[in-house]
Amino acid sequence: MKSEIDALMGAKNLDAIIVFGNAEHNPPMTYLTGGGHVSHATLIKKRGEEAVLFFGDMERDEAAKSGLKLIPYSKYDYEALIKKTNRDGLLAGAMRCELMLKDASVASGRVGVYGTYDLSAIIGLLSNLQKLMPDIEFVGEAREDSIFMRAMETKDETEVARIREMGKITTGVVGKVADFLTSCNVREDEVLLNENGSPLTVGDVHSKIHLWVAEQGAELPSGFIFAIGRDAGVPHSAGNPADLMMLGKTIVFDIYPAEAGGGYYYDFTRTWSLGYATPEAQELFNQVKEIYDKLNDNFDLNAPFRNYQQMTCEYYESKGHQTPLHTKFPIEGYVHGLGHGVGLNIHERPFSSLLNGDEHRLAPGVVITSEPGLYYPEKGMGFRIEDTLWVRPDGRMEILAEYPYDFVLPMKKWKTDN
Amino acid sequence: MKSEIDALMGAKNLDAIIVFGNAEHNPPMTYLTGGGHVSHATLIKKRGEEAVLFFGDMERDEAAKSGLKLIPYSKYDYEALIKKTNRDGLLAGAMRCELMLKDASVASGRVGVYGTYDLSAIIGLLSNLQKLMPDIEFVGEAREDSIFMRAMETKDETEVARIREMGKITTGVVGKVADFLTSCNVREDEVLLNENGSPLTVGDVHSKIHLWVAEQGAELPSGFIFAIGRDAGVPHSAGNPADLMMLGKTIVFDIYPAEAGGGYYYDFTRTWSLGYATPEAQELFNQVKEIYDKLNDNFDLNAPFRNYQQMTCEYYESKGHQTPLHTKFPIEGYVHGLGHGVGLNIHERPFSSLLNGDEHRLAPGVVITSEPGLYYPEKGMGFRIEDTLWVRPDGRMEILAEYPYDFVLPMKKWKTDN
Repeated sequence: MKSEIDALMGAKNLDAIIVFGNAEHNPPMTYLTGGGHVSHATLIKKRGEEAVLFFGDMERDEAAKSGLKLIPYSKYDYEALIKKTNRDGLLAGAMRCELMLKDASVASGRVGVYGTYDLSAIIGLLSNLQKLMPDIEFVGEAREDSIFMRAMETKDETEVARIREMGKITTGVVGKVADFLTSCNVREDEVLLNENGSPLTVGDVHSKIHLWVAEQGAELPSGFIFAIGRDAGVPHSAGNPADLMMLGKTIVFDIYPAEAGGGYYYDFTRTWSLGYATPEAQELFNQVKEIYDKLNDNFDLNAPFRNYQQMTCEYYESKGHQTPLHTKFPIEGYVHGLGHGVGLNIHERPFSSLLNGDEHRLAPGVVITSEPGLYYPEKGMGFRIEDTLWVRPDGRMEILAEYPYDFVLPMKKWKTDN
Repeated sequence: MKSEIDALMGAKNLDAIIVFGNAEHNPPMTYLTGGGHVSHATLIKKRGEEAVLFFGDMERDEAAKSGLKLIPYSKYDYEALIKKTNRDGLLAGAMRCELMLKDASVASGRVGVYGTYDLSAIIGLLSNLQKLMPDIEFVGEAREDSIFMRAMETKDETEVARIREMGKITTGVVGKVADFLTSCNVREDEVLLNENGSPLTVGDVHSKIHLWVAEQGAELPSGFIFAIGRDAGVPHSAGNPADLMMLGKTIVFDIYPAEAGGGYYYDFTRTWSLGYATPEAQELFNQVKEIYDKLNDNFDLNAPFRNYQQMTCEYYESKGHQTPLHTKFPIEGYVHGLGHGVGLNIHERPFSSLLNGDEHRLAPGVVITSEPGLYYPEKGMGFRIEDTLWVRPDGRMEILAEYPYDFVLPMKKWKTDN
């Protein structure tokens, strides 16, 4: 949680942190500012002291929403620095950054650098700044292990409420998609039809998903998945817009909307087969649902997350599928990890990899996905069930947005005996 | 243009470039890959040679859309590296990156680092990689001056067509907003009403804008501006959602949609006053329109962009306003620059700053905004007119999406003599 930042800085021997960049799609900045839309900001925090937010003057109203100590960039005469450095933007920027660091009482020690921003500009800035401030050591951290990823790993109730709200929006949209699809007319060759009689494509459905998420004021990363047939069997294929929507083929629908501007996410997947399912597909779906349920029955407070990846692999291997347990990079069978934390990042701690240590565990306050799947692209089918779960402080696992698991969705205007 | 990358690398003495990060909201990666949704990719290009895209195996279909030379991360045994380094993620990542660089025939020389990505992770990676590959110098560049910003500065016709299409979407949405607002009922105190009789708020209008942009399949950065009264007088205030929509107050509507996932932008602003305008507001609007038109009459092929910032400041100062020409950081009057390039970045070269040299000019192929404004927050009013213009190869300036400039929008159900 945010309150742990100072302790985490201490554990990593960081005397200060500096966060660069925008407030949008920049989790460390959003985490510390609360998400005001300051288009180009810098945040400096000395360990044990209040953070200082530096901002462009035109954005003073947005900056004020952060509640942080504020200093406008205009305090520093960048124009004079540009002239003094003979128009060397990197050096002038470094000289300004030196003044900012000093205003935040940071003149030496280990300074962690964070933010999602232009790598080239910051690497150039830091190489100049290092010469100006030789007593500072600027340091990076492995992504999964950074103080931000560690602080973000456990959520407070406000954060959980925001994720839960995204879950409500997510399942609302999924319900609309199911209702829309099952209401379509169906051609003799089992192709679904638009209202105007043209064949319904995956691209048509993508457009509706975009629209219905936007109606809720949320944001949908464009890599979301609504894929049918072979594409459903390739875990991260977004779906081919030209594919026709048909009965009896597996559809993987993996959707992860976020608060607008890059806030909290929800992550969710269902697998459907419209009208009917082939016996082979039904059998594979049943296996996915069986292990999904078994996992829910076995999640234990503080257990290592990898134990459940192990359980999932063992289950699938007992059914004859390839898994990462005994196959390197399988492309058929169970080909990915069981889940990951969800928050301001769609993928964050804890992770379920078999390689991970005990610290990736179901600690109170973590929010994770559970998403076992099976993939057979050559057979033209894929399956995944995914919910986002909160490990409550009382030790109970709670699915943050309930939604039915039905595989075969009956078509309202089509009968199996057609 | 993209074809200039090798020459620009030569001019900056770069032997290779490495681009980190996602394909979304990552202009250098989008520029070189064309925008397939590979959620975690690395691109390495040696000067004069084809770029190599490294990608996660699950995203092979998306990676293939780039048309680049492809190598899956699975070629490198990360699991073994993690074990070998005793679970040091930064070192293991650096060791994998060393193998990737060697596969792209890069073992020494100056390597430019690019991409919008996690600063901490890459700074940590590079500090390890530097020790493994001491013959490489990793370098950053000033943002405005980087090889990407320079290549992107001039657009080819395909890029212009994409910006033009975003302009069509933008002006379509703006027209819908104008039509919606002017169709509203108006209460006796000149507050606009929703269909259900409740007062119409700025937040209600924000929601509609989001929805109408999403309907077009585009993306709207959440810092877009629809602000009324005092907030219209603060250039980057997004607008207070609780503000009531009223007649006779200035509305600044600055909207910059992009292709979904962070593609090409369009940038556009109009200022409106519903029903009627106060004489003072009308006079100030007329000045903004007068200089806007004068600029259009005077844009010359290859002229320095700053000349037009100078012209705008001189015009406004002749009318008694403060401007950056003789006031440092004015907060009233004309308080910003005239414009900027638009492309995969909402702000890119050329820029209109008075400090800039002749190389920021209206060269054939650049796409710029022209956006003179006036701001008087204490008077509760602000004004800006903005279009996106293409400097055509034939030297003509073309507004990429035409839209009327009317300031007072007559209300359909309200008469001035009410």
